[in-house]
Amino acid sequence: MRRQPAPGRSRVNDPDATRGRVLDAAAELFQLRGYNATSTHELVSKAGVTSGALHHHFRSKKDIGLAVLRERVAPAVKKTWIDPVQSSRTATEGILTAFDQVASSLARRKVVLGCPLNNLAIELSLVDPDFRQVVREIYDGWRESLAQRLSSEFEQIDAEAAATFVVASYSGAIALAKSEQDPSPLKACAQQLERTMRQWRRRSRRS
Amino acid sequence: MRRQPAPGRSRVNDPDATRGRVLDAAAELFQLRGYNATSTHELVSKAGVTSGALHHHFRSKKDIGLAVLRERVAPAVKKTWIDPVQSSRTATEGILTAFDQVASSLARRKVVLGCPLNNLAIELSLVDPDFRQVVREIYDGWRESLAQRLSSEFEQIDAEAAATFVVASYSGAIALAKSEQDPSPLKACAQQLERTMRQWRRRSRRS
Repeated sequence: MRRQPAPGRSRVNDPDATRGRVLDAAAELFQLRGYNATSTHELVSKAGVTSGALHHHFRSKKDIGLAVLRERVAPAVKKTWIDPVQSSRTATEGILTAFDQVASSLARRKVVLGCPLNNLAIELSLVDPDFRQVVREIYDGWRESLAQRLSSEFEQIDAEAAATFVVASYSGAIALAKSEQDPSPLKACAQQLERTMRQWRRRSRRS
Repeated sequence: MRRQPAPGRSRVNDPDATRGRVLDAAAELFQLRGYNATSTHELVSKAGVTSGALHHHFRSKKDIGLAVLRERVAPAVKKTWIDPVQSSRTATEGILTAFDQVASSLARRKVVLGCPLNNLAIELSLVDPDFRQVVREIYDGWRESLAQRLSSEFEQIDAEAAATFVVASYSGAIALAKSEQDPSPLKACAQQLERTMRQWRRRSRRS
């Protein structure tokens, strides 16, 4: 299982690539087993870098965890949620697209790893204020972009509460999907949320 | 911080009390820091029992984890959710009572530990099929009791999908509350869910 760094793969003259490999390996292992269950030794081995190279870029495992949140998890949330919601014709369409794409990707992969943000948030945000701060910033950005889109589309709703509700339903649904190793809770929640959004539309039309 | 077992506290002639103390300590530490971040040594110390007494009752930390789910987490879900929903005048009232009591208790405690089921589900259900099985049984019992109540009250809804939606919204809301260390996401979600349930009522009346 353990890979030794291949010659030339961990060149000191390509520090960005080394750093990136550590973050990719860490994002994958944290998602698979969790932050606490992953040792720095496993990170070194999975990334195929030397321990020295890893410590050249990161002072501690915590530094790696914070960088994974900022440089891997935040872009994943942007790609999976923020971008589709911004670029869709309607907020409803964007939200349902996000649910649908995640459910399809889980069905293809045949394993439900869970939401990388939710996983690290649950594991780390109580015990460490630095993790909590970064987790919170990512959730805030996600909810704000949703709230902005929802408020321009549905005038008569509390857009911030509605955005929190969408993020919570999704996060809980993917947690249930992970527990069942089956994407069906995501489909059930998307179906219910679609009805709720129709109701938001009716309320906004009536006014 | 570390307590030695007080004389007479870990009597071999009271094995049930010893077992219960280990489970109480484990439930607290797993909730506070997580399963993987808690060592057996810390469990022994927190429970105030000897290592021998702990190993007399549990072969491994995993055995303790499974017993915590069955004997501490499942009863907590029953007390917080299943009982209020069963005993309330309406399903809506029961669901809002559960949200409200959790939010009030978090506000009083000034710390949001998160949902003990969601915390362990996220940390353990992917990596270990035995944990996944027990986690799933608890979620299933919770959702079935909700679905039963919802189906008797709202005739025109998909009660199972609706129950999944309620559990997911709650689980996601408490994950957000944990990340923010503030119960307000629970209040926002309860408010949104109340509107959704009003809509379920209208749809059932129309039919």
